[in-house]
Amino acid sequence: MESPRTVAKSRAFVIAGFVAAGLGISNPASAQNVQDLKTYSPLVLNSRGSFYVGGETVYSDNLWPSSPPLTGEHRINQMYVDYMIPVSRNKVPVVFVHGGGLSGKTWGTTPDGRMGWDEYFVRKGYPTYVVDQVGRGRSGFDHTNTNKVWQGLLPPKSMFAFFTLGYSLRWEAFRVGPEYGTPFSNTKFPYKYFAQLDDSAVPDNTIPTIVMPADSPTVNNLATLGESLKGAVLIGHSQGGRAPLDAALANPGAVAGAVVTEPGGCRAASVDAQLPSPDPIYTNKEISKLARTTPVLVLFGDTLGNEDWKARLDDCKKLVRRLKDAGGNATMLYLPNQGVLGNSHMFMIDENNRQVADLLMKWIKANVRKRSADLAQKGQE
Amino acid sequence: MESPRTVAKSRAFVIAGFVAAGLGISNPASAQNVQDLKTYSPLVLNSRGSFYVGGETVYSDNLWPSSPPLTGEHRINQMYVDYMIPVSRNKVPVVFVHGGGLSGKTWGTTPDGRMGWDEYFVRKGYPTYVVDQVGRGRSGFDHTNTNKVWQGLLPPKSMFAFFTLGYSLRWEAFRVGPEYGTPFSNTKFPYKYFAQLDDSAVPDNTIPTIVMPADSPTVNNLATLGESLKGAVLIGHSQGGRAPLDAALANPGAVAGAVVTEPGGCRAASVDAQLPSPDPIYTNKEISKLARTTPVLVLFGDTLGNEDWKARLDDCKKLVRRLKDAGGNATMLYLPNQGVLGNSHMFMIDENNRQVADLLMKWIKANVRKRSADLAQKGQE
Repeated sequence: MESPRTVAKSRAFVIAGFVAAGLGISNPASAQNVQDLKTYSPLVLNSRGSFYVGGETVYSDNLWPSSPPLTGEHRINQMYVDYMIPVSRNKVPVVFVHGGGLSGKTWGTTPDGRMGWDEYFVRKGYPTYVVDQVGRGRSGFDHTNTNKVWQGLLPPKSMFAFFTLGYSLRWEAFRVGPEYGTPFSNTKFPYKYFAQLDDSAVPDNTIPTIVMPADSPTVNNLATLGESLKGAVLIGHSQGGRAPLDAALANPGAVAGAVVTEPGGCRAASVDAQLPSPDPIYTNKEISKLARTTPVLVLFGDTLGNEDWKARLDDCKKLVRRLKDAGGNATMLYLPNQGVLGNSHMFMIDENNRQVADLLMKWIKANVRKRSADLAQKGQE
Repeated sequence: MESPRTVAKSRAFVIAGFVAAGLGISNPASAQNVQDLKTYSPLVLNSRGSFYVGGETVYSDNLWPSSPPLTGEHRINQMYVDYMIPVSRNKVPVVFVHGGGLSGKTWGTTPDGRMGWDEYFVRKGYPTYVVDQVGRGRSGFDHTNTNKVWQGLLPPKSMFAFFTLGYSLRWEAFRVGPEYGTPFSNTKFPYKYFAQLDDSAVPDNTIPTIVMPADSPTVNNLATLGESLKGAVLIGHSQGGRAPLDAALANPGAVAGAVVTEPGGCRAASVDAQLPSPDPIYTNKEISKLARTTPVLVLFGDTLGNEDWKARLDDCKKLVRRLKDAGGNATMLYLPNQGVLGNSHMFMIDENNRQVADLLMKWIKANVRKRSADLAQKGQE
């Protein structure tokens, strides 16, 4: 048997003169964060852990490209969830959905070692659930076709390609600054730890859709998760930003509130040119359904800069208008309008990440009704 | 631009008559575990969170196969770590290293919703660190060559293939029973939740090495992590089982104790025929170094059954003998010899998983000296 492992020893080469070194960015060669981790007062949890939601059992004719290949039934499209439940039990569960090329790590400890939103929300009394989108991280992906391409049984384009951004494109797309190496003068992003942000990138086979499709298994799984929680606030970001709306359309009972943060688009009026096929705008029937069932908050940060981000903001403003016109509860929270300045695309990581979280919690408190007891209300061992 | 996403819509098909249904295995079509999650007394943590350790910055000429491709510097070989620190601070940190085709989820909540070893150890006062091996889960992998194959720029065998086991092979390899669908009469594995175990499989590009190579980036990162913790007990499992020994050889100061559980082999005497190139046995110099520096515990479960597992046990017995002959502190913990019966390969999941953990903690207490303060001893905000 030939060895896929040995041939795959990477041709990648280490960059001697790391471009960002001149910025005082911490040396990626020693990029472990243990010394940087901040501590806070002790955290008391009713419970915590992890589980999978959704998925299908399918037959694979190539679990491994030996001769003959390993075959058999396996699981695909399942979604990893980790959770923390506070001791007080009167608040609605919150589900965090990360964006493209990333994982649930987005909502965890920040690259510079501060508390992430997962912990901040649970400290404020919200049961928190963090997912890895299907196709990434601990959710995995279906590798059957990749193995068949490796064996020459399928043409190369039968398999997934994978997407990440890398330093330079990420710096600009995430709006740390106008060009790689130059931060915005008022940026709140801890750019000296930019290498640690890139650490959290995972290859993504769901791109180039910069908005997750409404029929994605992740959307289905979010609806299943929300239903099992008897209604949760879904907080989606970037490529996953619109998922709370699509999950609410799939199952309004699953979504007690939809928080749409810096999505690739809102499907309100414009058609995203970056999608491989035109992404249809929400129909009036869909808008009416959302307006009847689901409080919606849309959030954008600062320093929108280029035309892409401004177009997305405009599209989402139109969504809020359409929902309001249909009698819905919809709010646009554009941070600069609140006097909150300098936020990047990664406001859950920015130095004022708790200030932004406080604004979301204020909205939740005012607009979302907790529908029932959360899962923590079970007997203790 | 052609769309890798659309062509990759899977040809997989859902199996109508899920084989295991007859066993009373929970229906994978509704395989979410929220209703099954057990709760315990509240958990008090000094701190918790996640970070990355190790890695390199490299240039990729294909971050995404557009025309022209996206290119740039990015991070590879970094390792995801999540951690929990107890309030009491007098015990040595413990690092958990999962096996092939899996992620750090191995050590989390069990498939049937019970507390995993990550939480059990922290409740017993040990700071716990759970990693995703490089190449999997939240650690990601280098996808450059895959994209170049997709574009026809490299031959298919230039890229990784990926490995998982699937239900049938996993049932046998993990020793749930003698053949798929038939559990051992005394098995401790919660086999009715076998689908949820398969949920936790992630495609693995480090196989077919059933023992992680000593020069793996994961081994390097474990040494870096252990050093930053001023010495940790490393607990490795299966394909990652021998990693604690190799990390100790790389940096003895990083490894306060090496716990080797059901490894693919111990490199004591036999050469693993499944490795693409012969895996060298430990030299006398290496054995001498381990004997001088590192307390070693080797653990095996029950129902070893086939010759592969018996050969691995024999190889590890020889390792323990060689270490002892060299004056080292080495112990073989073969569970049936302690009257602990019915354990599968996944003893950290089995119904008596806490009993097995207790045996490990007893060994740690008797054999491992905590070397210094753990990272939790920092000022509080």
